[in-house]
Amino acid sequence: MISQHEVRVSTRGRGTYDLSRDIQQLVRDSGIRTGLCHVFIRHTSASLMLCENADPAVLRDMETWMARAVPDGDPEFTHTAEGPDDMPAHVRSVITQSDLNLPIADGRCALGTWQGVFLWEHRYAAHKRKVLVTLQGE
Amino acid sequence: MISQHEVRVSTRGRGTYDLSRDIQQLVRDSGIRTGLCHVFIRHTSASLMLCENADPAVLRDMETWMARAVPDGDPEFTHTAEGPDDMPAHVRSVITQSDLNLPIADGRCALGTWQGVFLWEHRYAAHKRKVLVTLQGE
Amino acid sequence: MISQHEVRVSTRGRGTYDLSRDIQQLVRDSGIRTGLCHVFIRHTSASLMLCENADPAVLRDMETWMARAVPDGDPEFTHTAEGPDDMPAHVRSVITQSDLNLPIADGRCALGTWQGVFLWEHRYAAHKRKVLVTLQGE
Repeated sequence: MISQHEVRVSTRGRGTYDLSRDIQQLVRDSGIRTGLCHVFIRHTSASLMLCENADPAVLRDMETWMARAVPDGDPEFTHTAEGPDDMPAHVRSVITQSDLNLPIADGRCALGTWQGVFLWEHRYAAHKRKVLVTLQGE
Repeated sequence: MISQHEVRVSTRGRGTYDLSRDIQQLVRDSGIRTGLCHVFIRHTSASLMLCENADPAVLRDMETWMARAVPDGDPEFTHTAEGPDDMPAHVRSVITQSDLNLPIADGRCALGTWQGVFLWEHRYAAHKRKVLVTLQGE
Repeated sequence: MISQHEVRVSTRGRGTYDLSRDIQQLVRDSGIRTGLCHVFIRHTSASLMLCENADPAVLRDMETWMARAVPDGDPEFTHTAEGPDDMPAHVRSVITQSDLNLPIADGRCALGTWQGVFLWEHRYAAHKRKVLVTLQGE
């Protein structure tokens, strides 16, 4: 059994957006007991992340680290037409994930207790992001 | 055909643990000839890595690079309740992998000659880690 | 339905190689309407990347960033037998992707408008790289 669903996420600019609840709902609705839930973001300036979901400080620290590892306005970047966050958004996407595959067990997405699925918007401005979820299993 | 198996890994603290043999055994036992082997770690402070499996110096150098890219005790981190390796473990996990999908061909996990599947424990302390393996194919 | 195909890529040394067309062709030929296209590179010194495919400056800037994040000839590396680009190639592979799973929708690989699938050769020298594509769906 295979099914596909588009999830639309309206971001309010750079930051993380928890998709875990939406994804668990899609898995439940599918009736699949054992299988895989594939999550794919159709963009190259926002990405996906499995991250600790309990302490909001983790997400803030993640942003702190990333802002230092991939600084906005890098003077060596030449792809700058859309602003200082344009090229850094592409790099951030490449070193995190564009697709995640999550196991389905006992009819649920078998995330660990502290795992959440997040969309990470890397652009300053608000964007409408499309996430395609493909469920397969029995 | 789809099947799922939990692999438990007792780590002795930070370092890499080769899972290749366990995974190949699960693939062999499944009887699947052509398909995919999905490996998922249910934690956010340990991760998965496909890495060169012949020269132990590669794994040491990988740790050297990571320790510099994501330093323990980073003074800008605020999620520090569990110690100087806590938040760095989350960052390390995000820039490596929490899930790997490996092709199965001719009844084996079709890794390249020099590819090994490693669990990378990022915490100092020993942990019990749960890895969920989902096999599908024909 | 499941099928597997090997794609061979002859690189001319460090740089990016667009695989999108080859992959879309495999998906079309498979006749699968809804499913997943799994792309796997059987090496640990070249990797895969989903990246912006319109402005060549993005790929150049990506290389600029990577060359700074993982410098060739790092004096702390000990796995240096094959030259200054050897160990950096392994690190670059670990922080990008060795496998990508892409959704198939309406008989096509459902990439976003600006997404391309690239092989990233991290070694200086030309190499013959093997990519294994596994298609599954209905």
